[in-house]
Amino acid sequence: MSNSSNHKYAIGIDLGGTSTKFGIVDKDGNIISQGRIPTASEKPVDNFIEELHAKLKPMIDTVGGTQAFVGIGMGAPNGNVYTGNIEYAANLHWKGIVPIAHLVTEKFGLKTSLTNDANAAAMGEMMYGAAKGMKHFITITLGTGVGSGIVIDGKMVVGNDGFAGELGHTIVRHNGRLHKLTGSKGCLEVYASATGVRQTAIEFLQEDPSKPSLLRNYAEEELSSEIVYDCALKGDEIAKNVFDFTGEILGEALANFVMFSSPQAIILFGGLTKAGSYIMNPTKDAMERNLYQVFKNKVQLVFSNLKESDAAILGASALVL
Amino acid sequence: MSNSSNHKYAIGIDLGGTSTKFGIVDKDGNIISQGRIPTASEKPVDNFIEELHAKLKPMIDTVGGTQAFVGIGMGAPNGNVYTGNIEYAANLHWKGIVPIAHLVTEKFGLKTSLTNDANAAAMGEMMYGAAKGMKHFITITLGTGVGSGIVIDGKMVVGNDGFAGELGHTIVRHNGRLHKLTGSKGCLEVYASATGVRQTAIEFLQEDPSKPSLLRNYAEEELSSEIVYDCALKGDEIAKNVFDFTGEILGEALANFVMFSSPQAIILFGGLTKAGSYIMNPTKDAMERNLYQVFKNKVQLVFSNLKESDAAILGASALVL
Repeated sequence: MSNSSNHKYAIGIDLGGTSTKFGIVDKDGNIISQGRIPTASEKPVDNFIEELHAKLKPMIDTVGGTQAFVGIGMGAPNGNVYTGNIEYAANLHWKGIVPIAHLVTEKFGLKTSLTNDANAAAMGEMMYGAAKGMKHFITITLGTGVGSGIVIDGKMVVGNDGFAGELGHTIVRHNGRLHKLTGSKGCLEVYASATGVRQTAIEFLQEDPSKPSLLRNYAEEELSSEIVYDCALKGDEIAKNVFDFTGEILGEALANFVMFSSPQAIILFGGLTKAGSYIMNPTKDAMERNLYQVFKNKVQLVFSNLKESDAAILGASALVL
Repeated sequence: MSNSSNHKYAIGIDLGGTSTKFGIVDKDGNIISQGRIPTASEKPVDNFIEELHAKLKPMIDTVGGTQAFVGIGMGAPNGNVYTGNIEYAANLHWKGIVPIAHLVTEKFGLKTSLTNDANAAAMGEMMYGAAKGMKHFITITLGTGVGSGIVIDGKMVVGNDGFAGELGHTIVRHNGRLHKLTGSKGCLEVYASATGVRQTAIEFLQEDPSKPSLLRNYAEEELSSEIVYDCALKGDEIAKNVFDFTGEILGEALANFVMFSSPQAIILFGGLTKAGSYIMNPTKDAMERNLYQVFKNKVQLVFSNLKESDAAILGASALVL
């Protein structure tokens, strides 16, 4: 056995629906080197792990080989901290139960810990980001989907089965918009994700076809949350309404989360936060308006100050560091 | 100082909107004696404490005086475990901040701990009831209002400020029914409480005025959740629809709570649970229907097997025992 002072590094892996980011992290939370590969989950998981290993091997060797590592921390959709499995992830093609931590351990020869991708990001926020020093907070990722990580008393909430904190799937509009991957209706994710913002823009343009809008300069398939933001910046009314509508729903959902765990802060990150005050203001208004009196004007609602990929890599590495 | 072996008892107090129940509890969780007084919160709080003391004094003396007691545990609406204050309780006439633990300590000469009334009940369930041995569960009181207690990893969730777990105030129907005391619209409490069931019955009778119903044999002011239950038992269709509607909303809300903390069980108690399968079946159906796949068919939904007043008295006493 190598002595423990040789164990200076961890690998942090953020496995996402589209791409997987990874980095070598030292004990002070510096990302020494990093990279990314497509997740390509339509291929067998073994191929994915082969490619991941091929990319990481030279990085590992540069800092002294596997003996310099404590282990591998990994965040993935529906990643279960108790079992080390990805279980029934809606946005991956790998179906059913994937024993990913076991497979990675076998390939790399390093102890591998798994958690939910959003929980990994929350740990990154707690150790190095906007939630540093906080014991009660919730992180919400507003990306392709809506993820969440919940910390109570300084501990990640994983619940009885390791799957706690799926706030993107909570229902915010009874019988609302269909979630095509899950079949549910009116969950937060179908409204407050980049995909949701795009869908809202399409609906608003259709509902009021004679109203002029810069958004009409784009083909429907081109429309994205970035384009909606660009048009809002230029003063486009429909584009601004899209963010007001999104913030109204998101804020109401956040109020419900506050009334559950009474956090000190809610930290928003992910692509949608690029819309800045266009999304922040209506969200904050709706959150405060829907809070029961004892919770009003207490909860900080802030954007993450970490790079999104950094938060997840750092948080994942913190599982083993 | 008396030696600690003399400290055999605690006083458990459940301060409710209408009445306050109290009991002497021994270290094995037996309620030795108990009583109740009207809370009468329109009178000054000092009068209330005088009356409480007058009733408890003989009970205390019977078992050996205050020196036989560890202290007093108390549950109250908006009771704050950190400050010992009742703060802005919507269903009490005492307005603003009431330093109830301090006042009780002064009057009784015994250390007094306060918590939220629903949290006290949850502690009772954990120590002596349906949640015995569980580390992850949620209790929901379906009474005049809707209260909740949340346990994660064997600990009460009180949050950053001591007020966590106000699930009755979470919004379940956007822009829904008005909550007259808080001004919010569409919160769980306005639907899934005894008051909510009564209101739903009134609305259903008005919406379909020509439809026969046993409920029409009662004056509007007589209608109560008990009467709706009696009529449902006799096969009345509107009465059954009232419970189906209530269960649909409650179940959707419970699904959201499950996706937050992933508990092993949800324990329902309070007046509405007397409706048995009329409320349980639609609630369970709606909960399962709205759960994200990883949570389906995992969570026990059960009625409490403790007497409601016992759960709260026992739970309150557990704060100091």
